[in-house]
Amino acid sequence: MFRHVVMFSWNDTVDAAHVAAVAAQLDGLVAVIPEIKAYLHGPDAGLNPGNFDYVLVGEFDTVDDYLVYRDHPAHQAFIAGFIAGRVASRAAVQYSTA
Amino acid sequence: MFRHVVMFSWNDTVDAAHVAAVAAQLDGLVAVIPEIKAYLHGPDAGLNPGNFDYVLVGEFDTVDDYLVYRDHPAHQAFIAGFIAGRVASRAAVQYSTA
Repeated sequence: MFRHVVMFSWNDTVDAAHVAAVAAQLDGLVAVIPEIKAYLHGPDAGLNPGNFDYVLVGEFDTVDDYLVYRDHPAHQAFIAGFIAGRVASRAAVQYSTA
Repeated sequence: MFRHVVMFSWNDTVDAAHVAAVAAQLDGLVAVIPEIKAYLHGPDAGLNPGNFDYVLVGEFDTVDDYLVYRDHPAHQAFIAGFIAGRVASRAAVQYSTA
């Protein structure tokens, strides 16, 4: 299995409605990018200070499947429409779990 | 399910041997903290610029199980011995996947 993990801290343009829209858009990507095998995302639970605001863990069978997802037009359109200009900080790792 | 996700960027004291020791220590925690249900970690695959260096995704049945893990002496000893003083940046989120 190959995982893509990304976290965001939102900037001050982001309200609860935008976070809900992000979540809905992410769920929509699963329907149009069959390379996504699992895609579990959500807001920080608020237990620990200094955390980022939102996390996504995506799972793929192979690195190549991840790259198809990364470069997929629907994914790129999501980034352009819902992430670009909305993020104060971003942190990402892709890793093999095998 | 409740997930703890954390990423590190190492500072310049960290070499490959230390990363291998971190990985081994993390695998060791699974044996002594039964609240950990899954614990998949590893180094960044090097596909994308600007990524962090290492990621851990831990899974727990409940928030309370995560808190037992967070505060467990074996986990705290790992942080003190292998993470403290070794990290340039840290990013974390805990989230419910239910």
